[in-house]
Order: sequence, then C-alpha cells, then structure tokens
Amino acid sequence: MAEQIAKDAQKAANVLKTLSNNVRTAALKAVHDALRDRKDAVLEANKRDLADAREAQLSDALIRRLDLASGDKYDAMLQGVLDVAALPDPVGKTTMARQLDEGLNLYRVTAPVGVLLVIFEARPEVIANIAALAIKSGNAAILKGGKESAHTFAAMSKAISDVLSNPTLKVPHNAVQLVSTREQVADLLKQDSYIDLVVPRGSNELVRNIKASTSIPVLGHADGICSIYVHSDADVEMAARIAVDAKTNYPAGCNAVETLLIDEKLLNDNNGDGAVKVLDALALAQVTIKASDDIIAAVGGRVPSLVPAQPADFDTEFLGLTIAVKSVASEEAAIEHINEHGSHHTDAIITSSQTAADKFLKGVSSAGVYWNASTRFADGFRYGFGTEVGVSTNKIHARGPVGLDGLMCYQYYIKGSGQIAGDYLGAGGDKQFKHQDLPLK
Amino acid sequence: MAEQIAKDAQKAANVLKTLSNNVRTAALKAVHDALRDRKDAVLEANKRDLADAREAQLSDALIRRLDLASGDKYDAMLQGVLDVAALPDPVGKTTMARQLDEGLNLYRVTAPVGVLLVIFEARPEVIANIAALAIKSGNAAILKGGKESAHTFAAMSKAISDVLSNPTLKVPHNAVQLVSTREQVADLLKQDSYIDLVVPRGSNELVRNIKASTSIPVLGHADGICSIYVHSDADVEMAARIAVDAKTNYPAGCNAVETLLIDEKLLNDNNGDGAVKVLDALALAQVTIKASDDIIAAVGGRVPSLVPAQPADFDTEFLGLTIAVKSVASEEAAIEHINEHGSHHTDAIITSSQTAADKFLKGVSSAGVYWNASTRFADGFRYGFGTEVGVSTNKIHARGPVGLDGLMCYQYYIKGSGQIAGDYLGAGGDKQFKHQDLPLK
Repeated sequence: MAEQIAKDAQKAANVLKTLSNNVRTAALKAVHDALRDRKDAVLEANKRDLADAREAQLSDALIRRLDLASGDKYDAMLQGVLDVAALPDPVGKTTMARQLDEGLNLYRVTAPVGVLLVIFEARPEVIANIAALAIKSGNAAILKGGKESAHTFAAMSKAISDVLSNPTLKVPHNAVQLVSTREQVADLLKQDSYIDLVVPRGSNELVRNIKASTSIPVLGHADGICSIYVHSDADVEMAARIAVDAKTNYPAGCNAVETLLIDEKLLNDNNGDGAVKVLDALALAQVTIKASDDIIAAVGGRVPSLVPAQPADFDTEFLGLTIAVKSVASEEAAIEHINEHGSHHTDAIITSSQTAADKFLKGVSSAGVYWNASTRFADGFRYGFGTEVGVSTNKIHARGPVGLDGLMCYQYYIKGSGQIAGDYLGAGGDKQFKHQDLPLK
Repeated sequence: MAEQIAKDAQKAANVLKTLSNNVRTAALKAVHDALRDRKDAVLEANKRDLADAREAQLSDALIRRLDLASGDKYDAMLQGVLDVAALPDPVGKTTMARQLDEGLNLYRVTAPVGVLLVIFEARPEVIANIAALAIKSGNAAILKGGKESAHTFAAMSKAISDVLSNPTLKVPHNAVQLVSTREQVADLLKQDSYIDLVVPRGSNELVRNIKASTSIPVLGHADGICSIYVHSDADVEMAARIAVDAKTNYPAGCNAVETLLIDEKLLNDNNGDGAVKVLDALALAQVTIKASDDIIAAVGGRVPSLVPAQPADFDTEFLGLTIAVKSVASEEAAIEHINEHGSHHTDAIITSSQTAADKFLKGVSSAGVYWNASTRFADGFRYGFGTEVGVSTNKIHARGPVGLDGLMCYQYYIKGSGQIAGDYLGAGGDKQFKHQDLPLK
C-alpha cells in the first residue's frame, strides 16, 4: 500500500517535472479556486475537529492552531496559494554552462528533487501551503496530516484531489496524495527508493521521531538552541534590546534565544554594570534567568530573579520565557561553547569590533551567524524567500530558512554531436577537453 | 572510542574552517613532501600488503589496485595532492547578498560541510587524494582503509599524521584521523551528531552496506544502470559508435551502459537495418547481447550471438561485456523505462531531432541526461571539476560527478546594527523589509 503510494508519486513526479510553469501555475490557481469555493464545507469539517479537540481536552494552543475560521486565516491561506503561484519558476534554470569540446556542451540545470513526504501536525492551512509549493517546484508530494485535524484534512484533500483529477489541467492526479493513518507513515518512511525528501512540519518531537525512523533525508530541525554572545566591546544597550527581542518576541519559535553568553569583562569591569544592564532588561521582560555561579556571585544582588543554572540548562530549548546565562573567558570560549552545545541553527555576537565579529562569523558552524542582530531574523519571509518550506539544521543540501530552492536540486545535461569518451586523453584517445565556461543567459 | 574520534573530528573541523586558504594549502604541500620523502617506507609496507594478498589468493584485479609501485602511480598520487592544493579556494565565497533593511545585510557564504567519514577499499592512493580534498575544503576527515591495504595505510597515515602534528602548520592534528578496525566503522556510522557526510570509495556492495547501516547522509552510488535510447530519428552509425564506446571503453565503470533501448521503428522500417547496424557493432566488439523476444524475432538471424533477455536483465549492472537490449514503442516508453529501471545515474538519447532530445532531457530524472554523447562522459575530470570526490545518485545536495563543491554547503551571515525582529511587520512592529539584492563582488 505505502509502496504503491510512493511508486505512484514517483511516476507523477516524472511527469510533473516536464510541465511548463504556465501549466503548474494554472493548476495552483485551480487549487485556490476549489478551496475558496468549498470554504463552507472545509470550515464545517474544521468545526468537527475543534469539537473533538475540546472534548479530548487538548491544549488551548493546539486548538488555536487547529482553528481555521479564526481571523483571516482562511483567506490568508488562499492568498498564500496565489503568492506561491506568482513566484518565479524555479525549474530549468541553467546555473552552469561549459564547452567540454567543439560541439560537446555541459549544462547544470535546476530540477525538482522528486518526491516529498510531508508530515504535519495540527495546522491544517499547511496542507494548502505545501501542496502549492510542491506543484510550483515540480515535486510530487505525499501529505500526512495529524489525527487532530482529520476532518479538515479530509475536506481539503478532497477539494485538492478533485481539482487535480481534472484532465484539462494536465497535472497528474497523483502529484499530491493524502494519507491519513499512522501505520501508512511508518511504511512510507521505508520507501527510500521512491521518496527523496521528508519534510516534517510540527514539533521537535515529531522531527526527532521521524529522523530516528527513516534513511530518507529529512529537511528540518529537531532543536533550536540559539545563543547570543555579548562580547566585551558590545554596546550593552543594544545587547539588552536584542536579547529581549530574541527571547520574548516569540518564545516558542525555533529562532528564539535560549543561551546568553556574557564576556567575563562585562562582569568584572565597571562594577559589572554591562552584565547588569543586559540581565535587568531580561528580568524586566519577565524572563526567568538561570545563571552560572560566577554571575550570581558578581551581580546576583543587583538583578532580581536570578536562579542557579544547572549544566543541562545549556543544552535545553526552553521554548518559553526562560534563558540560561553563562560567563565566558574569551571569544574563543564562546565560539567553542556554541559549536558544542548549540543546535547549529542561529547564533549572534553583539560587538562593536569588526575583528571580533569576523572571527565569530568564521568560527561558528551554525546555519545562521549574526552580528548585531536578533536571532529572530532567521526566517524565510524575513530573508525575502517569499515563502518558507521550513528551517533546516542539516549540514548538507539546504541550511537555515529554506525557500523553494530547498525543494530543488539539479541535473547535468550534455548536448553532443556523437562524441565518444574513447577519443579523449585518459580513456584511450588523444583529444583534449577545452573546459571553457560559457556565458549564462 | 568512535564517539571520541567523531567529537575530535568535529572540534578540528571547527578550527579548520577558520584557517585561510594559504594555511590549508601550505599543509597540503607539507603532506605532499612527507609522502614523497617516505616513498621507500610506504612502498615497503605496500610490498607486505601485496605479499599477503597473493598468499590469500585475492583476485588479480584487486592486487593491481593495491599495487602502489606499478608505473607512475606513486608520483601521480603525489602530483594529485599538489593539483588539489592549486585549486581555487572553495571556502568563504559569497553566493548571495541582500539588503534586508538599512544597515541589515544578509549574505550566503560557502562553508565546509564539517566532518567527513571516508571509507575505502583496496586502492591506497585514495588516502592521499581524500586527505588533500578534505584539508583544501576545510572539512575534517576520518579515513578508514580496507584490511587488504592495512600496512600501506598505516605507513601513509603515519606520514600524514606526523606532518599535521607540526604546530607551525596551524592545522589541527585531528583534521585527518585514520582508523583501521572494522568495529570502529560500525560505531562511527552511528555518530550522526558529529559526522555530517559519509563518502564510500569502493564497490557497489560497500556503498549498499553503508547506506543500509547509517542515518548520516551518504554521498555515492550503489548502482550504475545507465541506458542509451536509440530514437527513430537517430543517426545509426553514431548510435553504434556511442553504444560501443559506452559499453566497452571501461565496462567496470559506473558510467558504462547496461541497457540499450531501440525504437520499434528501427526494428520494423527498412528491413530492421537500423537496429542491425547498432547490434552488429556491439557483437563485433565482443559484447554479449541479451535481447528481448521481438528483437530476436526481427533481426536474430542477422546478428550473431543474440541471447534471450530475462526481465531481471533490465535491472542488472553487468559490469562487463554484456548488454540488455529491448525495443520500445515510443519515446515516452523509453523515458518511463529509464525512470523506473535505471539508477538515476546517466542516460542518453541518440537522435537528430531537437524536439525528441528536449523531451528526453526534460523527462528523464537522472543526474546526467545526454543527447548524442556517450554515458562515459559522466566523470569529474571530463566535466572539468579538476578532481572528483565520487559520483552521486542522490536526489539532494550533489548529483552526478561531484567535485570539491560537493564537500561544501553554506552559512547565512547577517551583519546588522542592532535591529530587532519586533520592529518589523509580522512580528509586532511596522517597519518593512527592503529585500534588495546587492551586487556580488
């Protein structure tokens, strides 16, 4: 069953990648229209999910995420589909062209990855978003929603499937497939011959479980332990503002700061005023500060609500108004702490020294390394990617906020005129390669 | 033990990526000099491996691969290290620059992947090649040789380790670590917190085993089932030359052709002369032709040595002078066969029709798709990459022949002047992003 779904998806992907941008864009508009026309039916189904959720006494936060009728969520979802449709075509861009020899040219051309398995939890609007991203990028998608949103998911998927079954759209109807049972997912995660990338959209727990149970590459992040290092040459007012923003603007975000590293000098010089200014701002913003012993010893009396940090606090994503604070003896020690305890997501240095900033940017191995800016900027919309597939803490393929590009890879095309390898040096012949780069249009 | 090796490698990687190209290049020259100065000792060790291999009655092919003294192999290996040293620096290239707002700029900058685990079999010269590639690209490497080359490996690794222990080189001595027991590899494949990419250099069997036993991304290919489709509008002389080159130039290569798809028209029109010409050329080149029934029925009497193909032949990498041949009713059928039975490595169409070629290039999902050229061109040196890390049949990160670029990913840098997310639209404020692309230097 799962194998058939995955095979069908691969077949659909092979057709989808041959379709023009016009055809893919027209299909997105049709998906938009269908979801718009069936708004009442979808919201009706959503009400049933909400009722079930209340009955099961699920958390308010989850119910809020589930509720598709609140505010302009539905219309924003519809607009999102049109926004994706309007993005430039990511397929078939030539990114390298090289003459290997007379009449023998090599091209590197962007191509869809192939088949995506997208697994998400409560937020039903992600269905429309991901379906749109997949079709736009020429990838087939297998979508799996959470059981909390089962009715909404069924109504939306019916709308999408119906529209893609229309043969005039030319999009294979298996381009987007929707599965609902948990068993199917376990089996789908084994289909590494057909599925090329897993995109989990949900809690860290979800991502961690998926990563542990598949050999298919997973695009995502299980943790977001971001740090800010306040260097001895920092403008401490700036450091305070940035730390408060990074901690409190959206504490549940993966780009929220969890660890604050304060240079020893700010603790020891000027009576520790530098450190106090930053910590005071956090305390004022209702942040619980878990501080290392030397910080408590030096400024504990002057900052309210410091509590002693345990070693594990520096490996914890609090996802709330708590921060772990530690002093570091040097910039090297800060970099080392981040590389060892961080999750390679996003880390920032606050300093007025260009030299210190350059050293930090080079030394930290995270996807995002910032100088004098809040870690909260790590986001596809803020980066100007138009849309966001997710945030990746992988070290290959795509890192940090991932836009449509993260669903693309490339193919090499050679256009020849009958050349054989045996005529060239190294394979038996004496012809030499030219290896002359050609201009890109 | 394995965890400590992997941790040490990650620490070394974090230092290595901060070193300038000059420092990394100087280290490579020192590695070259050490291997040159210890040539006698290395070849002495190599003799012991060869004696052991002969005693164990290993295959001639393996003994040839093991023999470092034959021809100019040793000098070519030394030159290879200098060639890698002379490549342009792949680290720290800015590939995107964007003004997010006044005084808030985003940069995407190339960065090493991190820690490589390289596992190889008999060919000991790969040690020098991979050590050079790793240092040049700022990646730490853990190298594991085959048991057949244990003595050579030990001698070469001692030379490399000794030289990297020289503190004046500034390269952390754990930048290249060498492990030898099989148990360590099984444990290393579990260190997905520290190791970022596994690069197997050896048989398909090796790659398959590794892929099955790790969740770390593996850069490589287990199979190389390449196809050539002879279209109805093909120049059949050209098709014959290309098919013979692709099959016989180096039959053990992953880019050798295994499946030949012949358009039905070439079998039915002109008395089947088109098909006969191509098959005759293969037969003349001593190739065993496993043909589908309709081919045998149509031209079996006119081509010597056709044998009936079994279905499994079309999923087989023969790695020798055997080819599976099948007729296809249409270009669509050819594309579908390749996407279903190929290994997404390299496939070619022979045709004089631009339309047919475009359709094939778009429709086939392989890493390399060629028009009127031999599949044997799928090779890093032929592509002009200067060096080759391997050939990848993955669908993400790096596809096809992989040069130094395949060991690189990127980081995002933000250089700000105190900006916080909360001042911007969408996060509580009313400032708008500019998202203005900046020129790349």
